Amino acid sequence: MNMSRTRRERLVVIGGDAAGMSAASQARRLKGPDELEIVAFERGHFTSYSACGIPYWVGGDVTDRDRLIARTPEEHRARDIDLRLRTEVTELDLDGQRVRARDVDTGEESWTSYDKLVIATGARPIRPDMPGADAAGVHGVQTLDDGQALLDTLEGTRGRRAVVVGAGYIGVEMAEALINRGYDVTVVNRGSEPMSTLDPDMGCLVHEAMEGLGITMVNDAEVTKILTGDGGTSLLERSRELGGSRVRGVVTQDREFPADVVVLGIGVRPETALAKAAGLPLGPHGGLLTDRSMRVRGHENIWAGGDCVEVLDLVSGQDRHIPLGTHANKHGQVIGTNIGGGYATFPGVVGTAVSKVCDLEIARTGLREKDAHRVGLRFESVTIESTSRAGYYPNASPMTVKMLAEHRTGRLLGVQIVGREGAGKRVDIAAVALTAGMTAEQMTTLDLGYAPPFSPVWDPVLVAARKAAAQVRGTLSRG
Amino acid sequence: MNMSRTRRERLVVIGGDAAGMSAASQARRLKGPDELEIVAFERGHFTSYSACGIPYWVGGDVTDRDRLIARTPEEHRARDIDLRLRTEVTELDLDGQRVRARDVDTGEESWTSYDKLVIATGARPIRPDMPGADAAGVHGVQTLDDGQALLDTLEGTRGRRAVVVGAGYIGVEMAEALINRGYDVTVVNRGSEPMSTLDPDMGCLVHEAMEGLGITMVNDAEVTKILTGDGGTSLLERSRELGGSRVRGVVTQDREFPADVVVLGIGVRPETALAKAAGLPLGPHGGLLTDRSMRVRGHENIWAGGDCVEVLDLVSGQDRHIPLGTHANKHGQVIGTNIGGGYATFPGVVGTAVSKVCDLEIARTGLREKDAHRVGLRFESVTIESTSRAGYYPNASPMTVKMLAEHRTGRLLGVQIVGREGAGKRVDIAAVALTAGMTAEQMTTLDLGYAPPFSPVWDPVLVAARKAAAQVRGTLSRG
Repeated sequence: MNMSRTRRERLVVIGGDAAGMSAASQARRLKGPDELEIVAFERGHFTSYSACGIPYWVGGDVTDRDRLIARTPEEHRARDIDLRLRTEVTELDLDGQRVRARDVDTGEESWTSYDKLVIATGARPIRPDMPGADAAGVHGVQTLDDGQALLDTLEGTRGRRAVVVGAGYIGVEMAEALINRGYDVTVVNRGSEPMSTLDPDMGCLVHEAMEGLGITMVNDAEVTKILTGDGGTSLLERSRELGGSRVRGVVTQDREFPADVVVLGIGVRPETALAKAAGLPLGPHGGLLTDRSMRVRGHENIWAGGDCVEVLDLVSGQDRHIPLGTHANKHGQVIGTNIGGGYATFPGVVGTAVSKVCDLEIARTGLREKDAHRVGLRFESVTIESTSRAGYYPNASPMTVKMLAEHRTGRLLGVQIVGREGAGKRVDIAAVALTAGMTAEQMTTLDLGYAPPFSPVWDPVLVAARKAAAQVRGTLSRG
Repeated sequence: MNMSRTRRERLVVIGGDAAGMSAASQARRLKGPDELEIVAFERGHFTSYSACGIPYWVGGDVTDRDRLIARTPEEHRARDIDLRLRTEVTELDLDGQRVRARDVDTGEESWTSYDKLVIATGARPIRPDMPGADAAGVHGVQTLDDGQALLDTLEGTRGRRAVVVGAGYIGVEMAEALINRGYDVTVVNRGSEPMSTLDPDMGCLVHEAMEGLGITMVNDAEVTKILTGDGGTSLLERSRELGGSRVRGVVTQDREFPADVVVLGIGVRPETALAKAAGLPLGPHGGLLTDRSMRVRGHENIWAGGDCVEVLDLVSGQDRHIPLGTHANKHGQVIGTNIGGGYATFPGVVGTAVSKVCDLEIARTGLREKDAHRVGLRFESVTIESTSRAGYYPNASPMTVKMLAEHRTGRLLGVQIVGREGAGKRVDIAAVALTAGMTAEQMTTLDLGYAPPFSPVWDPVLVAARKAAAQVRGTLSRG
C-alpha cells in the first residue's frame, strides 16, 4: 500500500456535453474520487446529449427527447462528478487557477479553484446581425434547449410556412425535418448550390434531390432582414398575444419569403469568449489551439476539446474548425485519459462527414477543389457513376463518386459521394485511405467487400480510383 | 509514322468469364487488332457473367438470367475478339506454344498457336466422391450452365425438400434462395458452425439467424452417401421416367435427410488439370502461382488469373485460394494491361468477404483465430456489441464486431462483423486499415463518417478498435 497520500486534485470542466463529460467520465474511470475531485459546469438543462440528433427529434423520427441523452446529470453524479447545471462560467482566472460561475436562475456568482481545467464550451450558432434576428419564431438548433424551443414554436404555430436559412448539414437536415412535419419549406442559401462542404457539381445533385422532395431551394440568396410584426393574417392574433415581435418572413436582396417559422442553419462559431478574455491561444477560425494531447498550447494544466477547438486537417496540413459530435467524443476520451494519468493523442482529422436528406445520402472526406487550390495542391479530378449493388440485384441505386488525387504523386486528396442507400458510409474507405496516405493507384487494388447485394464487382470507390489513377498517369506522360 | 511493322502477335485466352475476358478486353483496349490477335476459348455457353449472382437468380431476386451477363459473346466479337464458345482446351504444349482445343458438341479437335497465353480456367465445385453424387437432382452452382440446370430441376420437381451440403457463402446463399422458392431447406455442414470463414463464435450468430428463417441447420455432419432411386413416394413416377438414378436424400454418419433436390456448396478447387499436365507451377492449394504482374512464375509469356490461381494474403504472408469475382476482375485488368504494354500489379488480398442471408449481413477480413495460430501470430481478440445507427434513430439494429490485433505490436489482424443493414460493408474500413498496416490504437482515431442515420457517435469498428487497443496495452503492461 502506498501510504504517502498526495493532495486530492480538483478537475474543473466547463461544458456538460460530449467533449466535457466524456473527459470527466474517462478521468473518473482512471482516478477515483479520493484522488480526483471533478466539478462540471453546464449552462443548460442537459448533459451528454446528441446535438446531431436534434433534426430527427424535430422531424419526428425520434419521439422521445430523452433518448438523445446518452448520460443524465443523475448518472454523472452517481459517478462522483459534481455537476452544476444551469451554471455559466463567466470568467477564467488563469493566474489564480480558478473560474467564476454564475447560477443562471438566481444570478449568484462564486469562484471555484482548479488544479486541472477542461474547456469544452462548444459552439454557438451564427445569428445574422440584422433586424428581427431575435424575434419569436426564429430558432437555432445547437442545443437540446434550442430544439425544445423550436418544437414549442412549431406546436403553437398555425401557419405551415418554414424558411431555413443556410443549406449546410443542419439546414438540409432541418429542411427534411420540417417537410416531414408537413411544412412548406424554403431553403435560402448564400452559395451557388446546397452543401457547400461539397464541390458545386456534387452539391447540384443534392439540389435536384431536395427539389424532388418538394423543398424550394433558393441559391445565391443572402438574407438581409427578418420581417416581424402582425403582417401575416394567420399570425395576427398570436403575434398580438406575444406583443408583436414575431417572425413573418425573410427578405433577401431581391425577394421576400413569408414564414411562420425560421430556422437558422448558417453554421456555428467556436464559443471561446471566455478563453479569449483569459488570453488563451485562438486560431484563425476563433477556436482554441491545442497540442496532440488536446492540451491548450502553452498551458500545462488546461485541456480543450469539442466544438470550441480547431483541429489539424491531416490532408491540408492546416487547422480547421469542424464542429461534430464524433470528434468531440474522441477529444473527451483523449483528454480524460491524459488527465487520468494515461496516454492518448488526437492526431487530427481528414474531414469526413455524412448526411441524409430523405433517402439521399451525402458524404465527403478530404479536400474539395477549392481547398486544394487554397493550400497550393494541384490535382486530378474525376467523377464516375456507378451503383450501390450489382446492377442486376434488386434496388441497385445510382451513386456518383468524385475523387481528387494529387497531380504527379497520385496521392488521394478527397472523395465526395452522393447517392441512395449504401452511398454514405462508403466514404469511410476513402477516409482510411487518406489517413494512410494512399495513392489512387494503390486504391485500385483494395480488397473491398464484394457480393451482389452490397456492391458491383468493382466497388464505386474502386471505379473512381481507377479513373483517377489513369488520369494521374496520363498527366505524367504528358509532362 | 512507324513504318517498321512488327509481326502481329496472337494472344490465346483459356476461359471466357471474369478474369479471361477482362484480360482480353483490357488488352484489346490498349492494342488494336492490327497489333494483337485475340482468340478466347470458353467451354460453356456464356461469357463474362456474374457467378456470384447465381443464388439470387435461383432465388428469384434476379428474374432474367441475361442480366447476370456483363458482356455477351457478340459484344466481345464486335471488339475483334475471336471467341470460341463450347470449345474446351484439352492440352497445353508449352514448347510448341500452342493449345489443343476440342469442340464440345462435335468432338473435333485442333491446335492453335500463341505468342502470349492467359490461363483463366476458373474453379470447379468439389463433388463428394461417393455413391449418388452424379445423380439427377444433385447440383453445383459454379457456372451459369449449372444455375440453369438447377432451375430446370426445380421447375420439374414436385417435392419441396432441399438439402444444401456445405454452409460457406454459396451454401448459405443457396439456402436462402431455396427458402425464397418455398422449399423446406436443410443445410448439412461439416463444421461446428456455418460460415467457416468466420470464427465459430461469430458463425454461431449466423446459425441462430438461419434457424430464425426456418432453415434447418445440421452441424458437425458429414455426408457419406447420396440416396438415389425410386424410394421416395412423391418421386416415384418421375424417377421411373428418368430411369431411376435420381436423388432422394442424403445420409450422414448418423442420420438420413430426404431430399428432392441437393445443392453442393462444399467449395471449389482451382481448375488446373491442364496447367498441371503442362508442368506449370502450382501452390499448396492446387492453384497456379504467379508473380505480382500475374505472370505464371518462370514463364515469360503466360499469365493466369481468377479462380485458378493462388493469391498472396498480405496479412499472413502466405498464398491462399480465394475464388471471388472481384479478384478475378482485378486480375484480368492487371493481365490485360501488362499484355497491352502497360504496367500493373496485383499486390495481394487481405481476405475480405461479405455475404447476406435474408437481412443478416456477414462480413470478414484478415485472419481468423485459427489462421493467426497457424502462421505463428499471437493476438488479442475482442468482441463488441453496437448498433448500425445512433441508438435513438429508427431502425438502429444490433451489430457484433470481433477484432483481432497482434500481441505487443497491436497491428490489426482481422475483423468479423455480423449484423443487419449497414453491417456488411463496414468491413471495408478494416480492409483498408489492414492494407495500410494500421494498429488498433491508430484505428481508434479514424475520422469515419458520423451522422445519426449512419452510425453511433463511436462507429462500431471504432468501439472494437478501442477495446482491442486497450487489451494490447493491458497485455503490454503485464509483460
